[in-house]
Amino acid sequence: MNNQTTNKLSDPNIRKLFENKNFVFLSTLMEDGSPQVSPTWVDIENEDILINTAIGRTKHRNVTRDPRVAVAVVDVNNPYNSVVIRGKVIDQLTGDIAEKHIDKLSKKYLDKEYPYRAPGEKRILLKIRPHSIFHMN
Amino acid sequence: MNNQTTNKLSDPNIRKLFENKNFVFLSTLMEDGSPQVSPTWVDIENEDILINTAIGRTKHRNVTRDPRVAVAVVDVNNPYNSVVIRGKVIDQLTGDIAEKHIDKLSKKYLDKEYPYRAPGEKRILLKIRPHSIFHMN
Repeated sequence: MNNQTTNKLSDPNIRKLFENKNFVFLSTLMEDGSPQVSPTWVDIENEDILINTAIGRTKHRNVTRDPRVAVAVVDVNNPYNSVVIRGKVIDQLTGDIAEKHIDKLSKKYLDKEYPYRAPGEKRILLKIRPHSIFHMN
Repeated sequence: MNNQTTNKLSDPNIRKLFENKNFVFLSTLMEDGSPQVSPTWVDIENEDILINTAIGRTKHRNVTRDPRVAVAVVDVNNPYNSVVIRGKVIDQLTGDIAEKHIDKLSKKYLDKEYPYRAPGEKRILLKIRPHSIFHMN
């Protein structure tokens, strides 16, 4: 095995893990400081990770209280190729940009516009800036 | 989608996710209270989750300081079938039991005895007791 620490999400081997249809596992902090982790879709933009959730969900409430997060991804075709990241939510975007982005993500993962929108659901885009990136393969 | 909260790791649909060769994502707390998450092999025993790591690794240091953890798993053949768990490390076992257990895990995931043992490496078995289990499928 080969372990490598790098600072660049844009490294082609790392980028590929996020551009493919792999789910990522986002860890956030509950109100009592305990960890929570859940699988989710992902997008990247330059050196940042983009996660799209609904306003008011646990993920959103947690990162609003404490922006510190961790993200892990493994290659669905080779689980021994993985990236683990620690970082912070540096921006939260709502409105048109978040609504359009969930359709973009849905097209990536489901090949169609987002089919699970609940009545009154509002989306929010979380922008995560990594401060440590660890690639294991 | 169907979301379900249950208290039982022994529920056959949940159990299967842990018995198959799926990796789990274990989240622990760093010294500064920020979350960390990494992919790892898994075993279950009755209502507890078993993780095997090497003594001194980040995971081990973190849960020794603060036993609160979260674990997520998705079905490698259907990522929309997932379980997320929050719980606590209630026991840490070393010695023969931990050394034999890593070979058991390795046989499950690699079909052979553990091939990555470093010189002087000592294994430790972390027993996690869930207090919340959420099944999404």
